[in-house]
Amino acid sequence: MGFEAFTEHFGPVIEQSPLVAATVWSHRPFPTANSLQDAFTKFLTDLPASTKGGVLRCHPDLAGRLAEEHSLSEASTQEQSSAGLLSLTASERDELRTLNTAYRERFGFPFVICVRENKKAAIFSGIRARLENTPGEELEIGLREVCKIARLRLSDLLTADTDSVHEPKL
Amino acid sequence: MGFEAFTEHFGPVIEQSPLVAATVWSHRPFPTANSLQDAFTKFLTDLPASTKGGVLRCHPDLAGRLAEEHSLSEASTQEQSSAGLLSLTASERDELRTLNTAYRERFGFPFVICVRENKKAAIFSGIRARLENTPGEELEIGLREVCKIARLRLSDLLTADTDSVHEPKL
Repeated sequence: MGFEAFTEHFGPVIEQSPLVAATVWSHRPFPTANSLQDAFTKFLTDLPASTKGGVLRCHPDLAGRLAEEHSLSEASTQEQSSAGLLSLTASERDELRTLNTAYRERFGFPFVICVRENKKAAIFSGIRARLENTPGEELEIGLREVCKIARLRLSDLLTADTDSVHEPKL
Repeated sequence: MGFEAFTEHFGPVIEQSPLVAATVWSHRPFPTANSLQDAFTKFLTDLPASTKGGVLRCHPDLAGRLAEEHSLSEASTQEQSSAGLLSLTASERDELRTLNTAYRERFGFPFVICVRENKKAAIFSGIRARLENTPGEELEIGLREVCKIARLRLSDLLTADTDSVHEPKL
């Protein structure tokens, strides 16, 4: 798979950051789905702390401004929708906004959680609990959530590829 | 300036890579335009080689597929247009495509040049000359061109800010 097709196909795996897929491409070939997922994870965990913060800052707030403006990425729309975050009651939305703002002010990046692995109640209790952590802890926890999100997005893309007639060659 | 506004405003400075602005934000404050430009340059030059390749791979071909599909970024459209690359003759376009393809196949990333600092003839002779370089040389030359592009894009954004009534606080 050429770098242009690879970057276009796997670019959305990391929110707003096709740069990650464009870099991971150089470590091909990826004989298995796992080896591709591991390459994304390794890229992220090897980043210096300031860039890990940058990766987190490319993520939207849950049920935040971008959701309201219908400007979320396709993947994020599906994920937030599946967790019920795009159909909150007005009071739930207000509560989540207050928590999001407190989190961003405390840590300098948004609250990132793999919403597909959490139900609405767990997301609300998760942000409350994580507000108690140190910035260094939250940087690593947030990044691990990005890795989980990436693994699921990659899995979806690869399943769709396998289902199609022309399986892309990695 | 909060990280969300900063990333949105300066995200387009590096093609397809708001991650760079989102990371640079953590090194604020930037008392001068130069200090902000230097922060972008430092981020790019400090990257490991594989990620530098990733940055280059996020750039479109000059007068390539994205230009034809009118899918270039706003900044890239203006830049390629100002160098006359979006109004090539058919034979010039064919020639550039052949050169672009040769370059990509040899180096594994697209030919990147700061077109605002080069006229059409210099761009054509530049890609021919650079095809003779080693991959390591081209990685560094391409990245220096990204830094030049970034410096001009930043300069434009900051000039526009200064012209507006509400100068953003960096």
